[in-house]
Amino acid sequence: MTNIEKIDVVQDIYEENDRIALETKESLEKVGVFVINVMGSPGAGKTSSIINIIRSMPEESFYVIEGDIESDIDTIKLKELGINAVQINTNGACHLDAPIVQKYAKKIDMDKPGILFIENIGNLVCPAEFRIGEHIKMLICSTAEGSDKPYKYPLAFEKANIILLTKCDLKEFVDFDDDFFRKGIKGLNKTAPIFEVNAKTGEGFKEVVEWIRKNR
Amino acid sequence: MTNIEKIDVVQDIYEENDRIALETKESLEKVGVFVINVMGSPGAGKTSSIINIIRSMPEESFYVIEGDIESDIDTIKLKELGINAVQINTNGACHLDAPIVQKYAKKIDMDKPGILFIENIGNLVCPAEFRIGEHIKMLICSTAEGSDKPYKYPLAFEKANIILLTKCDLKEFVDFDDDFFRKGIKGLNKTAPIFEVNAKTGEGFKEVVEWIRKNR
Repeated sequence: MTNIEKIDVVQDIYEENDRIALETKESLEKVGVFVINVMGSPGAGKTSSIINIIRSMPEESFYVIEGDIESDIDTIKLKELGINAVQINTNGACHLDAPIVQKYAKKIDMDKPGILFIENIGNLVCPAEFRIGEHIKMLICSTAEGSDKPYKYPLAFEKANIILLTKCDLKEFVDFDDDFFRKGIKGLNKTAPIFEVNAKTGEGFKEVVEWIRKNR
Repeated sequence: MTNIEKIDVVQDIYEENDRIALETKESLEKVGVFVINVMGSPGAGKTSSIINIIRSMPEESFYVIEGDIESDIDTIKLKELGINAVQINTNGACHLDAPIVQKYAKKIDMDKPGILFIENIGNLVCPAEFRIGEHIKMLICSTAEGSDKPYKYPLAFEKANIILLTKCDLKEFVDFDDDFFRKGIKGLNKTAPIFEVNAKTGEGFKEVVEWIRKNR
């Protein structure tokens, strides 16, 4: 293939992906389901944050699609808590895309209006490039990852509608520099709010939930 | 393109990549340079581990290629410590590949035999799929990421020749389950040693350095 042909192929993949993402989003909108694409590094605290939000909104119906390369550890955890969840295993692929999400969204019986969390593959790079049918992107970043992440992985921070800084109880042990972190984000994204949370104690999730209620 | 044509293209990319990786490895071997591909999640402690190893081997000459999507934060840090480092910015790409490493390896004046660290993009998925000219792969995983990482991101653990478990001072705060972590790795990789380290105090790096001396 020549380079121009390669670029055409990539362009086609993005366009086809966006078309299917829009289809998913619109069909879920019709049944009153609001879709949140949860992105972040491995171990940032994506599942724990989802669980904390679900616990703080007892009035709401929740559905979860868990994306993992392999394993169903998180789906088992969610089901044990009585949460309606399905597992996608990508068998190597580094992000979710719209076609796979569309396929699995059909496997959940979304009989009531509510919120669908789609937990993306733990990866601060590739998921940010693909729409999967979401209304908003929620970026989860832990203090243990260090305060330089917005500078090194700008796209995820740029595309986020809401940012959760997790594991705030570890701040003092990891020399987390709040000003540097926030300055990095402000240079990329002037609108996304940043909420500081601790999934172990539930601290900070009240504010997250208020924001979701207002913005859904 | 049909599916068969797509598979052919992917196959060609891997084969061409491996050919160039071998070329890089052999040309560096000729001048006595041992190459370590350092992989791990964002904020796992890759740069801090490299710095600790360099400090613990004063007899050795070191060279570093820093891979980042954007920014040169780590290269500046290394240069301030007098370490011979060059920066690769991939501008979005989620891993280093052999062609880009070959190009940048030529930019470092490796005038003495020694060790070249290539710090890959912070990503526990994609870098594991690409040879870049390394003799060994060093996987850096932090306790803050959680003990389930081998189950969720098996390829990186399977391909590693040596594994460093970093931020061991945080173990007690993050409920890290040692047995579960080690059991996950043993199911994928029976030969790679696992070293527990703390980059803040330098604890554990003596053993890492002994292993490198024996295995280079």
